[in-house]
Amino acid sequence: MTAEQSDQPDQHPVNALDDVVHQRVRLGILTVAHQARRVEFGFLRTALDLTAGNLSQHLSVLEKAGLVHIEKGYEGKRPRTWLTLTPAGDRALREEVAQLKRLIQQIEQGGSDAQA
Amino acid sequence: MTAEQSDQPDQHPVNALDDVVHQRVRLGILTVAHQARRVEFGFLRTALDLTAGNLSQHLSVLEKAGLVHIEKGYEGKRPRTWLTLTPAGDRALREEVAQLKRLIQQIEQGGSDAQA
Repeated sequence: MTAEQSDQPDQHPVNALDDVVHQRVRLGILTVAHQARRVEFGFLRTALDLTAGNLSQHLSVLEKAGLVHIEKGYEGKRPRTWLTLTPAGDRALREEVAQLKRLIQQIEQGGSDAQA
Repeated sequence: MTAEQSDQPDQHPVNALDDVVHQRVRLGILTVAHQARRVEFGFLRTALDLTAGNLSQHLSVLEKAGLVHIEKGYEGKRPRTWLTLTPAGDRALREEVAQLKRLIQQIEQGGSDAQA
């Protein structure tokens, strides 16, 4: 779907953005997971300044969409949750970046000389 | 607030994004309004592929935040709605672009060599 969308250069870049990925918090989660191979839940909470409930909710959206892989285990005796980006998650983030670049280009080119 | 946020280069770029501006449809509205001096409601609907109800809802969020100015009038006998970006809307869009650029830079620099 995402690939098809990229094939339509005529449409407005925001129409090609995927809400699952673009949403502010989820974009943050995907970015942090992209930068670190494997991210611990508590690290994400602090980095993105979220409540545990809010983070869990967004993680579940990303997991359902197949963009992250969630892993539960222990660090010593403490229960821990880690996540990693799936290959689909990596592709989705790249696609978001590509569309954001198109959008930024449009914004920076478009002065107030156009008329609609 | 936005200016203060920019002064904190340590925080994750998504924490500095404003949900009012970043939300996909509203980012589209602001972008089209930035490119054209004055945008007609029907043009926006088509450009962003929205229902009238959905567009109205997002416009009202942007108007309440002082980012767009809504103007109602007639074109011949037909009632029309136009919108223009306010100076605050223009600043908000620039700030969004600045934060998106920081985000893209982080994504493109960050391979999977970092560990968290």
